[in-house]
Amino acid sequence: MKLTILGCHSATPRINTNPTSQVLEINNHLFLIDCGEGTQVELRRNKIKFNRIKHVFISHLHGDHYFGLIGLISTFRLLTRETELHIYAPKGLKELVTLQMKLANSWTNYQLIFHELSSNISELIFEDDKVEVYTIPLDHRIYTNGFLFKEKPGERKLDMNAVLNNDIDLAYYNKLKQGFDVENNQGKLIKNKEVTKDPEKPKSYAFCSDTAYNEQIVEIIKEATVLYHESTFLDKHMQLAESTKHSTAKQAGKIAKLAEVDHLILGHFSTRYDSLNEFKEEAQTIFDNVELAEAGKIFNYSN
Amino acid sequence: MKLTILGCHSATPRINTNPTSQVLEINNHLFLIDCGEGTQVELRRNKIKFNRIKHVFISHLHGDHYFGLIGLISTFRLLTRETELHIYAPKGLKELVTLQMKLANSWTNYQLIFHELSSNISELIFEDDKVEVYTIPLDHRIYTNGFLFKEKPGERKLDMNAVLNNDIDLAYYNKLKQGFDVENNQGKLIKNKEVTKDPEKPKSYAFCSDTAYNEQIVEIIKEATVLYHESTFLDKHMQLAESTKHSTAKQAGKIAKLAEVDHLILGHFSTRYDSLNEFKEEAQTIFDNVELAEAGKIFNYSN
Repeated sequence: MKLTILGCHSATPRINTNPTSQVLEINNHLFLIDCGEGTQVELRRNKIKFNRIKHVFISHLHGDHYFGLIGLISTFRLLTRETELHIYAPKGLKELVTLQMKLANSWTNYQLIFHELSSNISELIFEDDKVEVYTIPLDHRIYTNGFLFKEKPGERKLDMNAVLNNDIDLAYYNKLKQGFDVENNQGKLIKNKEVTKDPEKPKSYAFCSDTAYNEQIVEIIKEATVLYHESTFLDKHMQLAESTKHSTAKQAGKIAKLAEVDHLILGHFSTRYDSLNEFKEEAQTIFDNVELAEAGKIFNYSN
Repeated sequence: MKLTILGCHSATPRINTNPTSQVLEINNHLFLIDCGEGTQVELRRNKIKFNRIKHVFISHLHGDHYFGLIGLISTFRLLTRETELHIYAPKGLKELVTLQMKLANSWTNYQLIFHELSSNISELIFEDDKVEVYTIPLDHRIYTNGFLFKEKPGERKLDMNAVLNNDIDLAYYNKLKQGFDVENNQGKLIKNKEVTKDPEKPKSYAFCSDTAYNEQIVEIIKEATVLYHESTFLDKHMQLAESTKHSTAKQAGKIAKLAEVDHLILGHFSTRYDSLNEFKEEAQTIFDNVELAEAGKIFNYSN
């Protein structure tokens, strides 16, 4: 699992700060998460192949999270893309993109498939044999979702010494990997757990931006490998965080602790702060394993 | 008169090429012309004060000419702008911006005034005591206008030697500047032309992008100080120019010659060309005074 940050600041794009966008690579998928203005240039800068992006997830329809999407859709068309593109976004985006296409008297030469979101409870919005994606309903000024990307559990691993000692026929190995008990060549029932080991813990990534402090998400993101939680403000600007329905670094730390995640990444920083170290220090008063997002930074979570 | 190029390439924004946008400073106005994705960052890079922009002119609703506008409008709001903003653009943009604002559950705290264009003949769309702006109907795949920015003629200049020799009372100086004949202290009628000189030639700027070769614009832009004419392609790609309703550098040169402008600036280059020198050479086979647009380049036309 690999996360590339394209932009991690709030509000307006500036010379050295990009609005929210990131790419998650998980089980050979390349998921684009949010798409602020300038995202297509950042994709180029980070040498991410446009054609590998087949799914785009948009948290909410504030501009700093989606104003780059229509340009990306157009660029895909100009590059004669044929691969279909799925867009998971709040209801309304389809109408908007349709109107923009109509005004330009054009449409895409590839299939553009909108999955419009409007539920206020967590739902499964993507699934294949290896990965699931769930929404994480957030608490912001407009309808907003985070997204939980989860690897499905892999097959159980054979303990080959135990398998051979128990004289189990090759034909049953797949059954063992799938977790079943099997009979050995002497007709004795062998308990699965005696001859297999747990698979590696499936990895998961929870993207939570933008949101006020909201303990209701803890249950959904429980024990995630990585939590990206917005921290627009520092604790000293708590009033601003409350009035704009954003979080502080300390609050992000609290959510990480309650959810017992392995890693916390902070992002969506207000451009009012010159140095971001205080964000890390503040979150670390609550939760140890904290890193700061940064445009161009890559987070690798390999086994 | 001063022109700052923010972007001058066609189609998709890339790391080193920005889509169309430029700022024209004329008689203390700062006019923003087209607004491709990333324009607000280029405005910052070129240190152009956001608040001085009160009028935005959008040629047409292809993305590379306006996808940066909604972000700019939002940023103005976040910066608590109070100055009104006028937007001159093809019909449809107001509906689009309104929908985007509705989806974000927000509106501007400043007055946003749309002047929607739909006429196919040149019309006066802005006028104050010093400047006029006319549309230049262009021939592109969708409804498109260029814009002609014209200084109004200044007052006539007093030839002070002649004025004093003719014994004209101070009270008549303003009349003289306005072009009237006056009586001198002896009651003799003095012809205006005998005691005044022509004012400096008013400057004008014609922005023509995007368009196929179109001689109908020549009459409108006749004798303009500066013509910015698109040259998406070189002559060797004439077929592409025709099928996409764009122009070649040679065709831009022809229009400049027919219109007898002082200066020609080429722009809207296709990103297929690595070097742009050929554009200049090609146009110069027809018209001498050619320059190439370039992001960050400033063209000054002082007296």
